[in-house]
Amino acid sequence: MGKDKKTSVNQDVPELENRRRFLGRSALLGLAGAGVSLGLAGCKDDAKANAGAPAAAAPAHTGGHEVAPGQLDEYYHFSSGGHSGEARIIGLPSGRELRRIPVFNIDPMVGWGITNESKAIMGTKADGSLKYTTGDTHHVHGSYKDGTYDGRWLFINDKMHSRVARIRMDTMEVDKITELPNVMGFHGIFPDKRDPVDEKINYTTRVFCGAEFHIPLPNDGRDLDDPSKWGALFTCVDAATMEVRWQCRVDGNMDLTATSYDGKLVASNQYNVENAAEQAGMMSAEMDACVFLNVARIEQAVKDGKTFTVGSSKVPVVDGRRESNKDPKTALTCYVPVGKNPHGVNASPDGKYFVCADKLSPTATVIELAKVLQWFDGALEKEKDAVVAVVEIGLGPLHTGFDGRGNAYTSLFLDSQVVKWNVEKAIAFYKGDKNAKFIVDRMDVHYQPGHGFASMGETKEADGKYFNSGNKFSKDRFLPVGPLHPETEQLLDISGEKIKLIADHTAYPEPHDGIIVRRDLVKTRPIYNMDEFPNAVKTPEQAGIERKGNKVHVRMMSQAPAFSIPVIKVKKGDEVTLTLTNHDKIEDLAHGCAIPNYNINFIVNPQETKSVTFKADKPGAYWLYCTHFCHALHLEMRSRFLVEA
Amino acid sequence: MGKDKKTSVNQDVPELENRRRFLGRSALLGLAGAGVSLGLAGCKDDAKANAGAPAAAAPAHTGGHEVAPGQLDEYYHFSSGGHSGEARIIGLPSGRELRRIPVFNIDPMVGWGITNESKAIMGTKADGSLKYTTGDTHHVHGSYKDGTYDGRWLFINDKMHSRVARIRMDTMEVDKITELPNVMGFHGIFPDKRDPVDEKINYTTRVFCGAEFHIPLPNDGRDLDDPSKWGALFTCVDAATMEVRWQCRVDGNMDLTATSYDGKLVASNQYNVENAAEQAGMMSAEMDACVFLNVARIEQAVKDGKTFTVGSSKVPVVDGRRESNKDPKTALTCYVPVGKNPHGVNASPDGKYFVCADKLSPTATVIELAKVLQWFDGALEKEKDAVVAVVEIGLGPLHTGFDGRGNAYTSLFLDSQVVKWNVEKAIAFYKGDKNAKFIVDRMDVHYQPGHGFASMGETKEADGKYFNSGNKFSKDRFLPVGPLHPETEQLLDISGEKIKLIADHTAYPEPHDGIIVRRDLVKTRPIYNMDEFPNAVKTPEQAGIERKGNKVHVRMMSQAPAFSIPVIKVKKGDEVTLTLTNHDKIEDLAHGCAIPNYNINFIVNPQETKSVTFKADKPGAYWLYCTHFCHALHLEMRSRFLVEA
Repeated sequence: MGKDKKTSVNQDVPELENRRRFLGRSALLGLAGAGVSLGLAGCKDDAKANAGAPAAAAPAHTGGHEVAPGQLDEYYHFSSGGHSGEARIIGLPSGRELRRIPVFNIDPMVGWGITNESKAIMGTKADGSLKYTTGDTHHVHGSYKDGTYDGRWLFINDKMHSRVARIRMDTMEVDKITELPNVMGFHGIFPDKRDPVDEKINYTTRVFCGAEFHIPLPNDGRDLDDPSKWGALFTCVDAATMEVRWQCRVDGNMDLTATSYDGKLVASNQYNVENAAEQAGMMSAEMDACVFLNVARIEQAVKDGKTFTVGSSKVPVVDGRRESNKDPKTALTCYVPVGKNPHGVNASPDGKYFVCADKLSPTATVIELAKVLQWFDGALEKEKDAVVAVVEIGLGPLHTGFDGRGNAYTSLFLDSQVVKWNVEKAIAFYKGDKNAKFIVDRMDVHYQPGHGFASMGETKEADGKYFNSGNKFSKDRFLPVGPLHPETEQLLDISGEKIKLIADHTAYPEPHDGIIVRRDLVKTRPIYNMDEFPNAVKTPEQAGIERKGNKVHVRMMSQAPAFSIPVIKVKKGDEVTLTLTNHDKIEDLAHGCAIPNYNINFIVNPQETKSVTFKADKPGAYWLYCTHFCHALHLEMRSRFLVEA
Repeated sequence: MGKDKKTSVNQDVPELENRRRFLGRSALLGLAGAGVSLGLAGCKDDAKANAGAPAAAAPAHTGGHEVAPGQLDEYYHFSSGGHSGEARIIGLPSGRELRRIPVFNIDPMVGWGITNESKAIMGTKADGSLKYTTGDTHHVHGSYKDGTYDGRWLFINDKMHSRVARIRMDTMEVDKITELPNVMGFHGIFPDKRDPVDEKINYTTRVFCGAEFHIPLPNDGRDLDDPSKWGALFTCVDAATMEVRWQCRVDGNMDLTATSYDGKLVASNQYNVENAAEQAGMMSAEMDACVFLNVARIEQAVKDGKTFTVGSSKVPVVDGRRESNKDPKTALTCYVPVGKNPHGVNASPDGKYFVCADKLSPTATVIELAKVLQWFDGALEKEKDAVVAVVEIGLGPLHTGFDGRGNAYTSLFLDSQVVKWNVEKAIAFYKGDKNAKFIVDRMDVHYQPGHGFASMGETKEADGKYFNSGNKFSKDRFLPVGPLHPETEQLLDISGEKIKLIADHTAYPEPHDGIIVRRDLVKTRPIYNMDEFPNAVKTPEQAGIERKGNKVHVRMMSQAPAFSIPVIKVKKGDEVTLTLTNHDKIEDLAHGCAIPNYNINFIVNPQETKSVTFKADKPGAYWLYCTHFCHALHLEMRSRFLVEA
């Protein structure tokens, strides 16, 4: 397998059909439980078997990512955190983790999921407890203006509970979370880049959300035994209000999502066009699809009331299934055939193409967007005619980044490689120019890469400097730390003709995806504005303890090294609300506020206000103390919280 | 202030008394709310004011921490995670975070706080929900054998809820958590290094736990208004069983804890010997103490039944207060006076000394352990005679590390420096040799250091290679990420005469403390042993769905790329237990298991078993899916969990 692969992948292209059949068979072998998964990721025995094969490209282990003490990084890497439920900010090239952003998880340090304010954003049950404390964040994308990041928002998905969260980039905190109705397995997410109709709106106003899993519609216990009746809804969320605008029912399992620079098209790669419920069925067809949605037409249909609703949801839904969209001139959707069980779909920075990585086919499929628009206009005969290249690039293609110089970089999960290939040459090759050498370079990565993305690569300002290969297996790359391994985030220098490996960074699982943003595009605030918090305790006069029946409101201020109220006394059974405003104005001077045995901790950054509400159900004396090192007298910064029996 | 400081700190030692008064005044000014905290950490205006002063030591920004791709780090850095509630493993010198270890927090990635097994360790309420989801981990220490790490266990404290957790180092997971009775503000923790009586026991058998806050004993609502009646208990936990062996009531607020290499002594630095409840009172005395506990005597007293109990706790408690321990020959405790409001106490690797950092005095106090033992034998007149040096080292001393060559490195919070000083020369200077130049070097750090610790510095194998300065404020050291800043973990090369700064690493707040361990001392397991899990689903015959009344047990296996049961059907209202055993044997091949809308996610590493129990209260179809990227068909790895209405 290794030998065959190494000799065939470059320009010496074999019959695609043969490779496809091979992959289909090996994957099915694994599924059938034959004991050996030939398609298996990172198998040690596979690695040994491959060791004898000549290396496609010896990695240049040059290092060179070091950022000297006191020096700043060039780029922000905003990274999703997978089933950790969080997002992360990393400096590049250093790889320093600059901040975790709690999103769908509880963060006892900042108090996310503990304070009243964060619980209101995350959502609670009737008893006030959090509705969910888990999440599975796959992708994070920035809001756009004029085809590049405007530094305003990040949008991030939760596959597990079908939620989209928005992070405001001035404070790097989540300010809204929206749960999508009648959706399960919300995987792909992408903001639009401009309005499909109004030319003046050259910035993000919508967030598009693909749904991977088919479920009964509505999912209330009906149709449990008949998956053929199940379906999936693609969702459009308003970027400003974070309310759901509309949904569109589509065939297939939607994987990743991409948007066009002109705002007119959004697409999702689709595995399982078979609409099967069993794994074997999901792989039975040799071709799957990339579904394009015509945004302007869908929104017109919504305006025209050509919609239905599902269950108790009020969201208007349009029908984007194949059967209902056969006439291109009225179609809401266009299903372009692509290779077997595709994974990623990515927009090239020149605005012309979407590149699909075909996963179970060793190919990438290039779709020309102008041709998709022609199809919608009735000027292209077949959907498949929008495909301008299908080229073999290697085994297990998953995701593609771009350097802004016409080259694509696709991760090859099974080959453990990143392959650099030229898009226009691939198109020429596919057209028949067999001298078009579209493969430029290959780099072995360690090991099994998932997402890969280039600096500014998802904008018109793609600068071709760095490529981050998010490798799912690290195995022997780092000091052993037990059965659970970190992932390897390998930083590649892509500024030259040959790819250079310059750093092995680590990641706590499982940051699927990320974006790499030029530092000048990010404008943060060093401290908060006290006026932005309606419940701020601004003056000593506003501070104090107020009782109304058995509800006690403690309004407190912090200023290093003291809380403003040294003794708080309540009665057992009281419902206590504690509001704390940090009056320190010095950058980085946060205070923590913990109440032992009451399971409460949160921090207040300079000029910030937060509150907690809890039942004083344990009599005794509790030292409310500062948990965030603030001052030489930090340890002495504590108040007595007394609960009378 | 800056000018005065810079010219006086080195060898030109002023009257200690003057510096002490100065600090007492400025700290009190801050407390009194005069608007300006002179003792304030990292004040921007202070920084400007200091800018004109000559730099004490220009930092050598040489870099040089880079570990090339594919190369392994030299050391493990085990780090506490502060109010994140977790622990962390970092490689040094690279600074790569290799793993987070959830301890007192919920980790939705691995399923900590979600699986039945982790909930049993963390502790639950009557309704099965977690008792606590927050924690404040200050210190992590390894178990010892022959004066160095044996790689068996890590022990870590929770200041917030007075718990001690144990991490087994082969898998790097918590296996036990013990809540200390009648303790609040459990701050200092340290394992013993050998047995005080039995010479053959040359390894850790006890874990010592200091208590910072005084509370009513028991804390059931009594004595709320009379803090003079409150007290604090020092606790000894059995390292093997993790049960509490005994407690000792002491005066003062116990801060850090240290143990002697001969096993005979354990000590806690104490601020607030005044036993005050208000901040001003905590600083009224010019001197505080370091309390030494005579372990053998205490355990004899426990054997002899000279104990009492507190509240419903069965733990035997001895009286270690000053008033009850005036006769050295029978005393359980010895209170050695040290400088005002001391912070850290650390054992020198030669086994001779404990060094106290005096925080509100610009001094370090060196206590000779042989002399403390002499006092307990009645052969030393006064406790203070055990002090062999009190030397001025700079403003705001907090913690001390050692290089094994006779030098100490103390963090200076207010000076934002690490000062290198020679212990024997300090002793000579204190004895009267005014030519003894005990200050060797100073390094500005960025900014406001808390804990500092050297490679192997808390063992007899201290090797003097690296020193990690855990700086609480980072301010301008990294790309801005909003009001919340990372902390700066500065890595210093201490192998030469002069300290060199080689890296600015980041940390998510707030890793107070850590240890740096040679990599050969850590032996981890790449995969689990299936036999160690009593509930493992080992064979297809054991797998399946079993119903008993409304309790349904689903026993499932995972092997890439499939779960062994494609369809699981239950009824609304059933209590479902799902047990999952991962049959993959390949290192790093973990699977995730999420059930959407049921707030469940956990992973199973190779050969590992975990289980969850939940109520099937939502009818509908839910795709149980793999959340941990495992295989080319990872996305297709899913089963249907069907809940009949």
